[in-house]
Amino acid sequence: MISEARLPRPVAQAIDELSKLPSIGPKTASRLVFYLLKQPPAQAEALSAALVSLHARLDYCAVCHTITESNPCAICADEQRDHQQICVVSEPLDCYALEKTGQFRGVYHVLQGEISPVDGIGPENLKIKELIDRVKDSRPSITEIVLATNPTTEGETTAMYLAKILEPYKIRITRIAHGVPVGGDIEYADEITLSNALLHRQQFISQ
Amino acid sequence: MISEARLPRPVAQAIDELSKLPSIGPKTASRLVFYLLKQPPAQAEALSAALVSLHARLDYCAVCHTITESNPCAICADEQRDHQQICVVSEPLDCYALEKTGQFRGVYHVLQGEISPVDGIGPENLKIKELIDRVKDSRPSITEIVLATNPTTEGETTAMYLAKILEPYKIRITRIAHGVPVGGDIEYADEITLSNALLHRQQFISQ
Repeated sequence: MISEARLPRPVAQAIDELSKLPSIGPKTASRLVFYLLKQPPAQAEALSAALVSLHARLDYCAVCHTITESNPCAICADEQRDHQQICVVSEPLDCYALEKTGQFRGVYHVLQGEISPVDGIGPENLKIKELIDRVKDSRPSITEIVLATNPTTEGETTAMYLAKILEPYKIRITRIAHGVPVGGDIEYADEITLSNALLHRQQFISQ
Repeated sequence: MISEARLPRPVAQAIDELSKLPSIGPKTASRLVFYLLKQPPAQAEALSAALVSLHARLDYCAVCHTITESNPCAICADEQRDHQQICVVSEPLDCYALEKTGQFRGVYHVLQGEISPVDGIGPENLKIKELIDRVKDSRPSITEIVLATNPTTEGETTAMYLAKILEPYKIRITRIAHGVPVGGDIEYADEITLSNALLHRQQFISQ
């Protein structure tokens, strides 16, 4: 901890604000502040402007609830996408991760979190009602819902909850595959991952 | 790397600006941005305001060249301090580190860097001329200069250079002690540190 008794107030304030960010402690924060002080003012100003326009210029997509500049978002507005196939994710960043694969041509639904009783997050705090409404209102009707919540306790709980609540709508509900990650080491894979990888083993295509 | 093709521009810009900071890569930057997006706008605004006021509200102390809100800085303006004893440091942060010890009652001189030929930083780029002027102009004259530059090649070079250039003024010039850090492990101390620790060994006061 850096004693703030003698630190000029703007420095202490900037350190204080930066320390509120996850993974940034007071030491890192003070290193960042003194770094910025050594740079031309334009750099701190550009960063400052970018941060303030985050909330000012962004909105949540009225359809899929991802973060967007235009409403509906670019994916929801894209006629080329398959609007009968919805991939359900926890956070906007997950959309970008999945988009990078180029494997999915449907649309998304961002829950904005996962069910986590420990953190007091229940289904009512997520965009689940909105998903159900989307399923109900969709013409032509949804053909598949891919559950792409995280492979964690919270993500699994959320996926399970969704599968149950979506059951009456007779839609094909799928879950992204669990298995050993590419480049990973079987020796170090945990047993649940490994049993999933075994359970869902696939025909290996030889030349 | 997160593909920015689909990222809303304000998000991409904030990630981009944050990634320019040392020790923050694009992954950390995007985690920070999405964290901020989930918080109330006030948090991003407070951070933004703190960053922009860094340069706007801060100045360099005309006497010791540290970062300050008032000029001269609080330490230089403090009549209780011993103005005949100057501790020379590389960066403003070093002052705060030394202040925390409560061991030093003199004043500081911030060089704003260290001599580093590799980075093209010579004595003329540092506040060395200003230190000499301070020594020349001081009434009553300076009694001691403590060289507290870093225990690195650059810091040692700077200390050596200063010792030489200050020689004509017949002032007591000292250097902070090198030795094994408290809580450190002798086994892992490098040999230069260890030989310094041996060389400067002190009388151990038994009860």
